[in-house]
Amino acid sequence: MASILITGIGELVTNDPHALDLLGVVEDAALVVEGATVAWTGRAADAPAADQQVDVGGRAVLPGFVDSHSHLVFAGDRSGEFAARMAGTPYAAGGIRTTVAATRAATDEQLTSHVARLVEEMRRQGTTTVEIKSGYGLTAHDEARSLAVARQFTEETTYLGAHVVPPELADDPEAYVDLVVGPMLDAAAPHARWIDAFCERGAFDADQARRVLAAGAAAGLRGRLHANQLGPGPGVQLAAELGLVAVDHCTYLDDDDVAALRDAGTVATLLPGVEFSTRQPYPSARRLVDAGVRVAIASDCNPGSCFTSSMPFCVALAVREMGMTPAEAVHAATYRGAEALDRDDVGALVPGRRADLVVLDAPSHVHLAYRPGVPLVRQTWVAGRPLPQL
Amino acid sequence: MASILITGIGELVTNDPHALDLLGVVEDAALVVEGATVAWTGRAADAPAADQQVDVGGRAVLPGFVDSHSHLVFAGDRSGEFAARMAGTPYAAGGIRTTVAATRAATDEQLTSHVARLVEEMRRQGTTTVEIKSGYGLTAHDEARSLAVARQFTEETTYLGAHVVPPELADDPEAYVDLVVGPMLDAAAPHARWIDAFCERGAFDADQARRVLAAGAAAGLRGRLHANQLGPGPGVQLAAELGLVAVDHCTYLDDDDVAALRDAGTVATLLPGVEFSTRQPYPSARRLVDAGVRVAIASDCNPGSCFTSSMPFCVALAVREMGMTPAEAVHAATYRGAEALDRDDVGALVPGRRADLVVLDAPSHVHLAYRPGVPLVRQTWVAGRPLPQL
Repeated sequence: MASILITGIGELVTNDPHALDLLGVVEDAALVVEGATVAWTGRAADAPAADQQVDVGGRAVLPGFVDSHSHLVFAGDRSGEFAARMAGTPYAAGGIRTTVAATRAATDEQLTSHVARLVEEMRRQGTTTVEIKSGYGLTAHDEARSLAVARQFTEETTYLGAHVVPPELADDPEAYVDLVVGPMLDAAAPHARWIDAFCERGAFDADQARRVLAAGAAAGLRGRLHANQLGPGPGVQLAAELGLVAVDHCTYLDDDDVAALRDAGTVATLLPGVEFSTRQPYPSARRLVDAGVRVAIASDCNPGSCFTSSMPFCVALAVREMGMTPAEAVHAATYRGAEALDRDDVGALVPGRRADLVVLDAPSHVHLAYRPGVPLVRQTWVAGRPLPQL
Repeated sequence: MASILITGIGELVTNDPHALDLLGVVEDAALVVEGATVAWTGRAADAPAADQQVDVGGRAVLPGFVDSHSHLVFAGDRSGEFAARMAGTPYAAGGIRTTVAATRAATDEQLTSHVARLVEEMRRQGTTTVEIKSGYGLTAHDEARSLAVARQFTEETTYLGAHVVPPELADDPEAYVDLVVGPMLDAAAPHARWIDAFCERGAFDADQARRVLAAGAAAGLRGRLHANQLGPGPGVQLAAELGLVAVDHCTYLDDDDVAALRDAGTVATLLPGVEFSTRQPYPSARRLVDAGVRVAIASDCNPGSCFTSSMPFCVALAVREMGMTPAEAVHAATYRGAEALDRDDVGALVPGRRADLVVLDAPSHVHLAYRPGVPLVRQTWVAGRPLPQL
């Protein structure tokens, strides 16, 4: 198995959980890749020999970003809705239905090429693991094909039939839930690892969400939830009660919600791009971290409430708006993202994990927040190999 | 003179001041470049023939960004100060002195290669005209060489000896102003088009700023000001009284300040990256635009208060945080930026202006705000030629 020595690393973020500092930083570092895997990390002066050697010129090297929340399978554009919202029109979850109509009308090839373009865009920005949800099909056929499209790009596919009640069943939401837990689940399950529900006023209530997750579990899918995005609600408590790996948004939390997350060990995945793009107030990551809750950040890339694909941008927002330190935000976008997907093979650069990494055009991870908006990702490596630079 | 027809433009932003809409948008458009200049714009169906033809595949084409405020000539890094500030330490203008020490210690070659790297980074993000200030030398020798370095990259060089009082004259600020308007001005003037002063508590008061600008005018330099950034102050009124082309920051304005800007026709240049990176409150661009003030936005790229070089990021912030529409923000980053530099040869894609343009990986200018943080600039053209893609 060919080995590559990456040297000249000014700052290596390992996320080694045994290190004394959060990021397990090693300065003047090197890293050895064997095949797809990290074989060694440490000071450059101590590096072993390898078949090949690459010098990154003093740059910072980080684990690739793990984006645990995205909705990439869709068609159409909602830039008009965005511009209207910025001019003062409030965001309504019903806008999702616009995308549902466009997605149903698109061919598999159109959906695939659109996802390919967004995944490529994410990789250029350093994302090496991405979760992709369905949720714009909302028929058995369209949810199944959305997930089949997503599965071409990632193992982390999530069935989100319970995204919103589609217009044809607007008068009978219970009939729609019957569909979600019945024939739609049967069609979707072979293509999905996870099942998710949007537990929010205007979408699905706690009983409906519970029913959806229970049916998913019976079909072998693990649960996650969208919750407490637009206002206080029961979703976070439900996630904690069910011991879910992660619950996402968490914009409106009371002290009991925070305590429940801490006690359950459920990862709170914050999506700062959503608050940016909807002008909602940001949740405090500081409050959650200080309470002992594990906090991940993710993009929520979707055409309605947040069309960023940029994890560096989310890191900068988490620092500016959510009270994280740069180190906490980088950790949340890598190590905690992996935890939010219950993955122990990515999210850190320690021996045995997949060699997914980012070379920054900067000397330190701090620059992701210090230089907001600047495309600092010089190169992305996936499974031990650099992606072609564009 | 060779001509190039750019066709397949899904949306062309011309900024034609005679158009009915702010951006002078033409859909399904084409543009002809002759030499360095725009020769024709209009509907693709009406396009004349040209020597060469380029199809941009339905993408949006905008005038290149005109970044009228940057401080690129410096050495050193203040990411540590940034991280401390994000953890709650307040920003003080005195931090500038850290950069002064590093800049004085740097060689001309080091400064030049650093500016080259940042200008290249800006161009990749669509900036085609950039103003560059001195202000980290603060001796006659170091201000002059800072400007000579900047002049290698732009005609828009600004002498900012009156940035902050350097440590060696901290006890005698009037003696420093004597230097700024005397030997330092003599050394700087041959390399500069503009003179600027930081009129703010902790930097220079209105009388000192007035003295600096008057001396500059006598030496043939046109005036601009940093004002009202950290609190209310007299700088904006001074700028209006002197009929300056532009006054920059404008974070703290009372109603009289706004009226003075409107009546004088002085461009208010807002720098949203600064508020982002210092957690100061954002000024309302909406208030200024509604009052009839011309508003530009610029990066203020500098190592202390804002190290972004990204005009697309500033556009997104202007929409999210300052109440601009996407069209207003794009106009402010292009046409108004040119006005802030009193330039009528850039900032618009109309016949006779320089063919400086940006091809976006998006169908519309709205996507700069709709897709925050995403590197959407696919190609930048300067003076009629595409820059090599990296």
